[in-house]
Amino acid sequence: MPSGILETILYAEDLEAAEDFYCHVLGFKVFSKQHGRQLFFRCGDQMLLIFNPNATVVPAPADSRLPVPVHGALGHGHVCFRASGVEISSWRKHLEDKGLTIEADFEWPQGGRSIYFRDPAGNCLEFAEPRIWGLE
Amino acid sequence: MPSGILETILYAEDLEAAEDFYCHVLGFKVFSKQHGRQLFFRCGDQMLLIFNPNATVVPAPADSRLPVPVHGALGHGHVCFRASGVEISSWRKHLEDKGLTIEADFEWPQGGRSIYFRDPAGNCLEFAEPRIWGLE
Repeated sequence: MPSGILETILYAEDLEAAEDFYCHVLGFKVFSKQHGRQLFFRCGDQMLLIFNPNATVVPAPADSRLPVPVHGALGHGHVCFRASGVEISSWRKHLEDKGLTIEADFEWPQGGRSIYFRDPAGNCLEFAEPRIWGLE
Repeated sequence: MPSGILETILYAEDLEAAEDFYCHVLGFKVFSKQHGRQLFFRCGDQMLLIFNPNATVVPAPADSRLPVPVHGALGHGHVCFRASGVEISSWRKHLEDKGLTIEADFEWPQGGRSIYFRDPAGNCLEFAEPRIWGLE
């Protein structure tokens, strides 16, 4: 089986709004970007890639050196970032200070807290303690 | 900024086909599942969660103990798993032996190989060497 995930993908049609949010609210630094198509961030030992689905559903030219297959989804995706209990409290305050709505905030029956909020594209973002999955 | 990603999400309407594929082709073991709604796998130090978007767009009951917000996307998502160059060659042979089509297989200009294929829902899956991102 695969040893780990290298790239996690979200979609956003407005990549400028996404860049502003992920950089200025969540503190990411742009790894690379291509106007109107993609916006890449490093997150820990992997990558968070945000694509404009209107661009990625267009096939690469037949003679492309890099024939990346088409992909792209519409709707509201979901990603969860790892955080300790203390970090989640800090994130909640920080996100509210930035004017965001915390859509949910609860403890799981098995122990561990999650908070949920939205990026500008409506993707459902979460901070959770790894112990909700028995992870460290 | 977030220290890492805890949950990566894909969507599939046919979760039985997804379970068969992720378990018998990719070698995952089911962490937990809920018929018609979700199918969860551990992958390294994080989780790969596959949801039926028709179920996750339905709001939780107002009095729910676990008011997980709605999410759900239609189309073809994308996830990339990490693998060494040697592992990618093994995966290619294994996937072809299972009857899958390798949709693309190339070296990136910065060094490192990617192969692409599809899950039964049409999600675009990839194995890539972490060095394509300067990661180990």
